[in-house]
Amino acid sequence: MKLYKLFILVLCFCSTAQAQNPDEKTIQSISEYIMMQGTAYDNLHYLCKNIGPRLSGSVQADKAIAATVNMLKQAGADTVYLQPCMVTHWERGPRETAYAYVNAKQKRQLNICALGNTVATPAAGIKARVVEVKSMQALHDLGIAGIQNKIVFINIPMDPRYIETFLAYSESGIGRRAGPAQAAKYGAKAVIVRSLASNIDTFPHTGVTQYNDSFPKIAAVAVSTADAEWLSTQLTKYPATEIYIKTNCKIFADKASFNVIGEIRGTEMPEQIISVGGHLDSWDLAEGAQDDGAGCVQAIEVIHCFKKLNLQPKRTIRAVLFMNEENGSKGGIAYAQHAEITKEQLIFALESDAGGFTPRGFSLQMNESQMAKVKSWSPLFYKYGVYHFVSGHAGSDVGHLHKLGTALAGLMPDSQRYFDLHHAANDVFEAVSKRELLLGAVNMTAMLWLVSEYGL
Amino acid sequence: MKLYKLFILVLCFCSTAQAQNPDEKTIQSISEYIMMQGTAYDNLHYLCKNIGPRLSGSVQADKAIAATVNMLKQAGADTVYLQPCMVTHWERGPRETAYAYVNAKQKRQLNICALGNTVATPAAGIKARVVEVKSMQALHDLGIAGIQNKIVFINIPMDPRYIETFLAYSESGIGRRAGPAQAAKYGAKAVIVRSLASNIDTFPHTGVTQYNDSFPKIAAVAVSTADAEWLSTQLTKYPATEIYIKTNCKIFADKASFNVIGEIRGTEMPEQIISVGGHLDSWDLAEGAQDDGAGCVQAIEVIHCFKKLNLQPKRTIRAVLFMNEENGSKGGIAYAQHAEITKEQLIFALESDAGGFTPRGFSLQMNESQMAKVKSWSPLFYKYGVYHFVSGHAGSDVGHLHKLGTALAGLMPDSQRYFDLHHAANDVFEAVSKRELLLGAVNMTAMLWLVSEYGL
Repeated sequence: MKLYKLFILVLCFCSTAQAQNPDEKTIQSISEYIMMQGTAYDNLHYLCKNIGPRLSGSVQADKAIAATVNMLKQAGADTVYLQPCMVTHWERGPRETAYAYVNAKQKRQLNICALGNTVATPAAGIKARVVEVKSMQALHDLGIAGIQNKIVFINIPMDPRYIETFLAYSESGIGRRAGPAQAAKYGAKAVIVRSLASNIDTFPHTGVTQYNDSFPKIAAVAVSTADAEWLSTQLTKYPATEIYIKTNCKIFADKASFNVIGEIRGTEMPEQIISVGGHLDSWDLAEGAQDDGAGCVQAIEVIHCFKKLNLQPKRTIRAVLFMNEENGSKGGIAYAQHAEITKEQLIFALESDAGGFTPRGFSLQMNESQMAKVKSWSPLFYKYGVYHFVSGHAGSDVGHLHKLGTALAGLMPDSQRYFDLHHAANDVFEAVSKRELLLGAVNMTAMLWLVSEYGL
Repeated sequence: MKLYKLFILVLCFCSTAQAQNPDEKTIQSISEYIMMQGTAYDNLHYLCKNIGPRLSGSVQADKAIAATVNMLKQAGADTVYLQPCMVTHWERGPRETAYAYVNAKQKRQLNICALGNTVATPAAGIKARVVEVKSMQALHDLGIAGIQNKIVFINIPMDPRYIETFLAYSESGIGRRAGPAQAAKYGAKAVIVRSLASNIDTFPHTGVTQYNDSFPKIAAVAVSTADAEWLSTQLTKYPATEIYIKTNCKIFADKASFNVIGEIRGTEMPEQIISVGGHLDSWDLAEGAQDDGAGCVQAIEVIHCFKKLNLQPKRTIRAVLFMNEENGSKGGIAYAQHAEITKEQLIFALESDAGGFTPRGFSLQMNESQMAKVKSWSPLFYKYGVYHFVSGHAGSDVGHLHKLGTALAGLMPDSQRYFDLHHAANDVFEAVSKRELLLGAVNMTAMLWLVSEYGL
């Protein structure tokens, strides 16, 4: 690529083009400030490299709380405080092991990890024949006769035909979410689930599964997509293949933790609160850079930008870093409960929990008139790359506010790369583009500004 | 991120939603085929890892020609042939060296690379005082008095405020394109240009510079952005800092080479030709994955998809892999000359040379009525993430067809990450996302299909 695309897009995407009305000017100043002097990328580096994995209940989660309190103070928040919540406390323990015994000759180690909130295998591990299913229906069709005393291998790939990868994640995710409980119903000894990943590699991707109290709780692990492909091939050739699994995880009593909150008091209607946030906890295997360190540092950036540009919001701006989204959502629940009990006027809540990739739109979960108002602002976002203003779920943490009537929104970044690293050890700082991350913060700050000015 | 975004975007982006009209159905089948069975990613792996850097005139460029001929045959092209062209032949020789002598104590090696098509320093290298300029105007203001016998350090960062990074590249690029010639005018001994990169790291980014025959040709190198920042700081503290530069590059006589072409003959109007392409040459420092292996394998994917889905184009579809885009554009020129001489009816030419990132739009260089027709198709692209249909330059290779009246278009991928690796050693296969690459090919194939059906 040489110099010839110079004139592309002068009509759009060019943040330095003349801004017309006051909102356009304000949003342009927001964009220029964040793209030039944003701190989100440096804050993310600290969160990923100085703290690292921060699963709820862990020492690192406590460190992440302390670190982000400091970041919010540095950003200039008027008030920074902790909101107590009890969180799920599950620990993986020593890394899991699994071997496939294909035949007398061939033994191979598998790249696996226990699913979140699962029970461990017995101390000696579990060794058994394997039965593969490629759908939940196939699992039910096998029933007790086909499953009892076996290890069930649920091999449901993400469907690459979905352009929006979250749809593929949702569809194939049934195996991880419900598979172990259903397999237990038919007497399975353990479950191996193909990682929910859009690529083929050797990283196992964890995530929660939901047990069903009517059935026994059995060990459940995710296996890398590369190993899932290999295993599926072996099973067609050697149906007698056995697998040995040993997991060491443990669920403890809920533990006291906190959501981290920083506010800028509104100048005219401080009682009306507009919140923006992501979740501070991450899975224990990863740095949690895209999921969801990105959303946290973007929320902090909103505060930082308002203060440094001396933007005076009419309504109160609140950054919320939720705890325990990954394996309990108890931070989000506590946040909603507190708002309900104290009768807070939470008029709007924006969540960023789909990665720090190039922003493409907002998913709006609000009533018709509120949606019409937000959509009327959409032209202000076009030159910052945001075009989609669609009805949809806003996010898992703010979702708990729905019943309070809070208007909700979720940032929709480009989703093509997310499930290459989601919940896996390759979700690291290096996988985040500084410009993509900051551009998300630009659009979030712009949205907060408009809601703080005009309400909903 | 858990399971809560399930319903986002069911309205859009969901390629498996019911397609209505025949074109919608065809494009859906194109998308599903390429996302599931596309070969572009594997072809790119071969080009990057089995061949690697392929600067015009190099042995690897010849290997890339042979390899892509084979890929086009594998893709099922009716005819595959080579179009002769003479290309620029410049060689870097042994890697360059540069040292900054800040003061008596401090000597530091700098990460540099010669700019394309530049002359070498004398065998002993060049050592001289350094003068920094932060704009071309500053260079002219210094004039002979400030520049003669010095090394000029042109330190113009890319402006992060541009959301469309190509605009920043264009603006700051003046230093690399014209700086060395202008510095020579004032008697400079050599020029060091800050790399045209949107991030701060230690990779020098090469690229061509244009000498001016009225002035002496002097050695010119790019320095990494990290070193540029360091050097700028040192110069404020130690204005007497000297730099030693040694480059070993050489320009040879033009060399015979080829554009690689594969065609599917049109069923009704075979004389009307629709071409799609990227450039096969890359800089010698990089694998040329994003620039522009991506465009080449996407063009091959178009042929592959038409054949495998048995789509019968009414007009002839032609994939063109241009040679010598980076440092001469002589493949593109030869392609246009051949079309002119043989009076080919080249009705449309699409270029992909902005990286294999998530596609965002098309840049259209055509007359009003043609543009209106293309824009009337835009709703067919929305669910594949492509929204921008804007007037702009299509690309450097197809640009030579403009004078023939060919309607031109350029794929516009997301540009946030491109200049982190453009023309540098980190432009490698690993920097390409399979889904992003394939999604570009989907939209390119869809556009080719529509033009082949309806013409312009």
